[in-house]
Amino acid sequence: MSSGTLHILGLGPGDPELVTLKAARILGAAPVFAFFAKRGRPGHARGIATPHLNPAAEELRFDYPFTTDLPVEDPRYLIEMAGFYDRCAEALSARLAAGQDVALLCEGDPFLYGSAMYPFDRLRHRHPVQVVPGITAMSGCWSLAQAPMVHGDDTLMVLPATLDSETLAARLRQAEAAVVMKLGRHLPRLRGILEELGLTGRALYVERGTMEGGQVIPLAQRDDSPAPYFSLLLIPGRQGAR
Amino acid sequence: MSSGTLHILGLGPGDPELVTLKAARILGAAPVFAFFAKRGRPGHARGIATPHLNPAAEELRFDYPFTTDLPVEDPRYLIEMAGFYDRCAEALSARLAAGQDVALLCEGDPFLYGSAMYPFDRLRHRHPVQVVPGITAMSGCWSLAQAPMVHGDDTLMVLPATLDSETLAARLRQAEAAVVMKLGRHLPRLRGILEELGLTGRALYVERGTMEGGQVIPLAQRDDSPAPYFSLLLIPGRQGAR
Repeated sequence: MSSGTLHILGLGPGDPELVTLKAARILGAAPVFAFFAKRGRPGHARGIATPHLNPAAEELRFDYPFTTDLPVEDPRYLIEMAGFYDRCAEALSARLAAGQDVALLCEGDPFLYGSAMYPFDRLRHRHPVQVVPGITAMSGCWSLAQAPMVHGDDTLMVLPATLDSETLAARLRQAEAAVVMKLGRHLPRLRGILEELGLTGRALYVERGTMEGGQVIPLAQRDDSPAPYFSLLLIPGRQGAR
Repeated sequence: MSSGTLHILGLGPGDPELVTLKAARILGAAPVFAFFAKRGRPGHARGIATPHLNPAAEELRFDYPFTTDLPVEDPRYLIEMAGFYDRCAEALSARLAAGQDVALLCEGDPFLYGSAMYPFDRLRHRHPVQVVPGITAMSGCWSLAQAPMVHGDDTLMVLPATLDSETLAARLRQAEAAVVMKLGRHLPRLRGILEELGLTGRALYVERGTMEGGQVIPLAQRDDSPAPYFSLLLIPGRQGAR
């Protein structure tokens, strides 16, 4: 029997209407769909996909083994996660080997900080794979904020707030525009760095971009309470688009 | 009469199926659509939108005043372009003021190096505007190349090859992953910089990603002939997604 295809589907940042026609078509036909979720949560990608799913499809839910019990630097974390992704890949492979196409649901774009990269690495040489790009969270956020980001010779830097302060500052110095992901509890530290670089006035905090209750707040007006998972900072480039 | 809404629509990198459901819905309903194109060319955004357009809609084509006659640093270029965008904005404004919604077609994502930023800046305070994000060219290319770009603490740098060599090298040193846009005739110079930074082995050249005849070539196997407009270089981040 010939293998099914693993469709790794970018589903965009949250609004189900920001799914592409291609992803919607594949979702409507796939006999199996799979997604990652935190224990006890419905799963963000699952929520975006819901209006587009084949109602007869088999649902494979992969619950992350833990969320905050171990720090990511702990070797046990890496070992646990590798084992988890191995098991996910085997579950996907079983359906593919039986000739079924499988849609793996991904919020945003699969290859920009997406968990789908882990099963992809495990299955790319064993089964046919198609990757369908998705609207990134950052595009969703700067569209909501109506903030043109880069034009002409501007450079855009995308970086996680989890980096140490020295690295963050060095990298922010090397770009006209920036997107800072994974804010979490790093907002006060980041504010200090941006202040020093003279960037606070340009920075926009965006929470739940393209989702219900999405909001845009100038950083100068945002307090220092921890940022939720679906938030990021935008620093638009030079205002030369006149 | 109340103003129509200017819908600035990201249409993705080329494949008409990579249009979002939202953009397709707006295209099918808008009584007017507008796009930029080079003289004598059909217009890339127009081509992507074609299957989704309202057949009764009015078509506004904006031909760029020139392409290669003047260098972009020439003050006459800036003055000419500002005048051009002023005239485009007035043409759009006339329809909006008459109560018509207008769809402005954009390849890729409107606020990532998109021409739509110029009419947006002129009209944002005069008419209601909605910005619909699109799949970026880079997402289309790394999906075609099946190249996971960033994970964990990786940083992504997006930069134009038109920057001077010293700036390019400094910026590439500050990121694990990079996308180099606007290659044109800069490929040989860029190759020298990547060679010096030890990045040649990881670099992928992608031409016409998500379009007919799209191809992915390791940079080491690409010759130094000028790169067409629809091409870019990908330098995927650390290969830790195991």
